[in-house]
Amino acid sequence: MAMSSSIDLSGTTYCVLSGASQGIGRAIAVEVAKLLGPKSVILLLARNKDQLAITAALCESDNVSVVYESIDLSKASPRQMHDVIVRSLKGRSVSDFAASIIFHNVGSLGNLSIDTAQMENVPELREYYDLNVFNVIALNTQFLKIFDEIEDRLVIVNITSLCAIKPMSGMAYYCSGKAAREMYFKVLAEEKKHVRVLNYSPGPVETAMIDYVLAEAVNENLREVFTSFKNQGTLLKPEVTAQKCVRVLQAGKFSPAEHVDYFDDE
Amino acid sequence: MAMSSSIDLSGTTYCVLSGASQGIGRAIAVEVAKLLGPKSVILLLARNKDQLAITAALCESDNVSVVYESIDLSKASPRQMHDVIVRSLKGRSVSDFAASIIFHNVGSLGNLSIDTAQMENVPELREYYDLNVFNVIALNTQFLKIFDEIEDRLVIVNITSLCAIKPMSGMAYYCSGKAAREMYFKVLAEEKKHVRVLNYSPGPVETAMIDYVLAEAVNENLREVFTSFKNQGTLLKPEVTAQKCVRVLQAGKFSPAEHVDYFDDE
Repeated sequence: MAMSSSIDLSGTTYCVLSGASQGIGRAIAVEVAKLLGPKSVILLLARNKDQLAITAALCESDNVSVVYESIDLSKASPRQMHDVIVRSLKGRSVSDFAASIIFHNVGSLGNLSIDTAQMENVPELREYYDLNVFNVIALNTQFLKIFDEIEDRLVIVNITSLCAIKPMSGMAYYCSGKAAREMYFKVLAEEKKHVRVLNYSPGPVETAMIDYVLAEAVNENLREVFTSFKNQGTLLKPEVTAQKCVRVLQAGKFSPAEHVDYFDDE
Repeated sequence: MAMSSSIDLSGTTYCVLSGASQGIGRAIAVEVAKLLGPKSVILLLARNKDQLAITAALCESDNVSVVYESIDLSKASPRQMHDVIVRSLKGRSVSDFAASIIFHNVGSLGNLSIDTAQMENVPELREYYDLNVFNVIALNTQFLKIFDEIEDRLVIVNITSLCAIKPMSGMAYYCSGKAAREMYFKVLAEEKKHVRVLNYSPGPVETAMIDYVLAEAVNENLREVFTSFKNQGTLLKPEVTAQKCVRVLQAGKFSPAEHVDYFDDE
């Protein structure tokens, strides 16, 4: 797959998506499912099995076999991640797939109830990074290992945020974690020239995260930003940003590991 | 201390510096010591006490009382960090100081012997982030708490790297850790408008790190970059970049938490 060329998912495609039980993850799964060709597979990962089942039902089609497994990506071992992907293949050879794509959508906001100047809880930082950075890396490595044979047909999408490149008061966990995560994918893209890597920033989306911020945040500026998002009706619907993500992918005009935002021109 | 105004360290100043036993840390300590006014204090932190003693000897002057303590910042608790700073004050009130400055110079390169696509050792990632990110945050918080009373006279310098903003093949630990660390300071600066925060990138410096890269790195591109640094004699002497760091600080023209590189115009 050449650089900056369009990405075709209309063949037999393998797709794995983390954080698939809700919000942006669910919306991306639904949009991607529509594109996939015959004998494709989608593996949906998240903790909540009931909500995964709903996402799975929304993705089902004649072309796509949807598999889902409850997994806690804050604690899963690389071995468990490896095995969940292998199980979803049901004995099929990776070379059967014309493309294989992973969406790293899992994420959390971190502790919003503490001023940045008061941060000192190292175990809490470790836990945050386990889910948001370290295990994202570990899952990505399992994907690369399992699909090594078709490395030139791989696509990696990291769901990032404007916060990865622009500091936001009251969100030091989130901003620093997103910065670290995005940078890992940038270094990977430097080394793996044949793998297409995209950092997609979905913009402010109407999800449970918004209410979580308003319930938890102590930072006044952060509360104001999110309150105005909510009151002015400027929040995006998950399906709208998911559709943009898919369009950006298909057009394939992004440079290796480029940070592409919802609000960027197409 | 107003934004974008010059920073004056010629009064009675408190200074704490991590990674002070060698290289850039030692050079910055020496340069800063020259500036400080009567009754100033410098606290030097690192693991190696013998090397700290050498740095301390280089910093001694009529104006400056130099204190050093061996501390392993990969493992120290917030309490231990707090206590080491308090001990160095020897009962003096923080309001005695016209300015207080911290240099976060501690850092390591991470595992260079693994391709980024093979990373999956989560405990190793945690250890790397403990030293390079989480405990930097914890130490910074102790500094802010102890000097809370003179918050408008505080200066924070994070020694960062071009790698915080530009991916470098073979250095995923280092690049992602530097990105996370720099972003933490950017968020802090958003919240703490009265604290001067600088992210200083020292450029390629002739330190033990260079030989470590050449000894450990598996990535060909990385080896080539560092070999050419070494062969072409383009590496900077530690004192040269330390002097630039001090000039940037004194001029104080940087915006909050700005990433300023050695090669940037003055």
